[in-house]
Amino acid sequence: MKAEIISIGTEILLGQTLDTNSSYLSRKLAEIGIDVHYHITAGDNKNRLCDSIKAALQRSDIAITTGGLGPTIDDITLNAIAEVAEKPLILKKEIIRLIEHHFKTRSIKMPKNNIKQAYVPKGAIWLKNLTGTAPGLIVEIYKKHLIALPGPPREMIPMFEKYIIPYLEKFRVKKSVILSRTLKTTGLSESQLHNKIAAFLRLSGSTTVGIYARPSQVDLKITAKAADPALAKKQIGIIEGKIRKKINKLIYGADDQKLEQVVAGLMGPSTISIAESCTGGLISSRLTDIPGISKNLLFSIIAYSDRSKKELLSISPGLLKRHGAVSTVIARHMADNIRRIAKSDIGISTTGIAGPAGATHKKPIGLVYIGLSTGKQTIVRKFNFTGSRDIIKFRTSQAALDMLRKFLLK
Amino acid sequence: MKAEIISIGTEILLGQTLDTNSSYLSRKLAEIGIDVHYHITAGDNKNRLCDSIKAALQRSDIAITTGGLGPTIDDITLNAIAEVAEKPLILKKEIIRLIEHHFKTRSIKMPKNNIKQAYVPKGAIWLKNLTGTAPGLIVEIYKKHLIALPGPPREMIPMFEKYIIPYLEKFRVKKSVILSRTLKTTGLSESQLHNKIAAFLRLSGSTTVGIYARPSQVDLKITAKAADPALAKKQIGIIEGKIRKKINKLIYGADDQKLEQVVAGLMGPSTISIAESCTGGLISSRLTDIPGISKNLLFSIIAYSDRSKKELLSISPGLLKRHGAVSTVIARHMADNIRRIAKSDIGISTTGIAGPAGATHKKPIGLVYIGLSTGKQTIVRKFNFTGSRDIIKFRTSQAALDMLRKFLLK
Repeated sequence: MKAEIISIGTEILLGQTLDTNSSYLSRKLAEIGIDVHYHITAGDNKNRLCDSIKAALQRSDIAITTGGLGPTIDDITLNAIAEVAEKPLILKKEIIRLIEHHFKTRSIKMPKNNIKQAYVPKGAIWLKNLTGTAPGLIVEIYKKHLIALPGPPREMIPMFEKYIIPYLEKFRVKKSVILSRTLKTTGLSESQLHNKIAAFLRLSGSTTVGIYARPSQVDLKITAKAADPALAKKQIGIIEGKIRKKINKLIYGADDQKLEQVVAGLMGPSTISIAESCTGGLISSRLTDIPGISKNLLFSIIAYSDRSKKELLSISPGLLKRHGAVSTVIARHMADNIRRIAKSDIGISTTGIAGPAGATHKKPIGLVYIGLSTGKQTIVRKFNFTGSRDIIKFRTSQAALDMLRKFLLK
Repeated sequence: MKAEIISIGTEILLGQTLDTNSSYLSRKLAEIGIDVHYHITAGDNKNRLCDSIKAALQRSDIAITTGGLGPTIDDITLNAIAEVAEKPLILKKEIIRLIEHHFKTRSIKMPKNNIKQAYVPKGAIWLKNLTGTAPGLIVEIYKKHLIALPGPPREMIPMFEKYIIPYLEKFRVKKSVILSRTLKTTGLSESQLHNKIAAFLRLSGSTTVGIYARPSQVDLKITAKAADPALAKKQIGIIEGKIRKKINKLIYGADDQKLEQVVAGLMGPSTISIAESCTGGLISSRLTDIPGISKNLLFSIIAYSDRSKKELLSISPGLLKRHGAVSTVIARHMADNIRRIAKSDIGISTTGIAGPAGATHKKPIGLVYIGLSTGKQTIVRKFNFTGSRDIIKFRTSQAALDMLRKFLLK
């Protein structure tokens, strides 16, 4: 089974709205083994929309449209479908009652325009909208399946999951599925990671591995095509096991896991305190996104200025003068001192030059020191990050959280 | 002039990557008066890609592709273009030198694969990649314009702006443009704002106003279609003036301006200190994204635990016991005390229940107090926010920054 997705709306063609429906539908269709051959976006123009639907139904077995089912004059999907299917539009009393009910529960009188949404091409299956007024449609045209869904994701997604997945699963001939799993790393560049696992990136056939870089993060995506989900998961598991044998410590998490979440999960009863200079609160903010972190995170101080380093973190003025705020020595003292002040097991510190100002010949933009202090030892690592101010802040927070992760793993 | 945008990549058709390039290009093309009739996404399949390019060039004057110019075997755009243009691919020594230089500055030897990126269809114009290795292309085919750009936005956008906009502006016949301007507000819900400016939302014709809601932010987008940019800007300016007459104080900025940027811009010589409980560092992190804030932001303390409120902010244990950490009284003392400790002009505090745990019958999730202390007075505002933990954190940071903005405006 081959499918195409047609998103409808001039606001998408003007770049004012980003189409996320096609991406969602593609993922869901892949999961039930339906290949998507094209995404098409057409505007609110009936002729061009009719052409798009006709071409899609000629090339593929399934065409799914999203959008254009609203009550206004711009919404032309119903008329286009009626024209392609060569069927008249019939007014459905049952749909009028549903729409009236929708407005009544919101204490609003149904606007006259909405009656438009109660028309259905003769012979089509219509689908109740669980979160809005526009019904969806399934129309069979010469053994091909034309499916029309509303545009707002909060209406489209429940309708797709409730009605369309069961409908399409009946027609699945080729029972193959595509699943993927993402292994997330930080600390190495794309090419450094590439070199470590080059053999896996050359895999071809039903299971493949792709590499995707973002600032301070490189993902490995394992994708498997198999007869059923269990088999696909098994194939993914085999490759994941082999990759982990090579670079297990570099992988901080998988799929939707965030680094701060992984770190919080490794904390156990350990307590921590943080002295942030160049990150300006970002590390603390990321950690406090995780529920329950209050039992671990005792104190955080954002010591941005020299004065705050002296007064809040008891850094000696002499040391600051001798080494400068951005130095190994100050990072070490910041981590040690915050740990002592908070009486925590671990102290973390950051100090660096996030730019765009503040750089000198010896201390360029992106120079960052991160300290990690425990009762037994204090480690300071030096980094030379690139990028804009917010990217340097983010890279520093990634490196600090990953230092903490590796320490907690020991 | 009509254009179509073709994004290339199986990862988009699988829903693993969201195509944002088409949206960006559409906005830019609208600005120079070029109508976009279709977006098409094709996978890494040469036949289907050739079909898509041919169809686009038949229907429209301009086809812009993004993606598929990489060095791997999946990258098929060059071959597809050569086939559609019926031209051989020619190796360009100048491009090899550019790619070698790109790798040399990164202390990496050029991988053999990258030589593929130095081929160009005979007679095509090639465009230097300012931030990567794949050159872009402009090919004229029967007076139509086929433009190929790399997929990564950080390579595509600079190339489009430097080479393609000047190239296309030469061909503009219909001199109408669509411009828009976004006015950003926070503090009111979509329906509250709707009621204040309902008349503008009913505008039709060449200048219209739309309303778009996100958590803790409602945008008003004014869009104007006119014969030239100056006229469009004038039309937008008239409507903006009328909207500002009604709700000027609610509008914190326009277009790409961020609230923290606006607040930083209003600070002047004022100094500030922040005591964050439920926001966990988010307000400080947002403010420190803005260069130069170090002259204003003296101290920030993340007083997440009761102990840190006592030890770092000198909150009396008796008060904490009597009122609880989430209360007007504690918010007031936190703001007053951080201001005194830092010796700053302004002190800001947040305390609240971000969830999912920590709620009681009297203090539900989303209950937040924000304090703003100056020498003359201390204001505490109470909020009942909804949403998940990170959304409540964000809403609190928005409300605190907006309180600060309104104070600084006085």
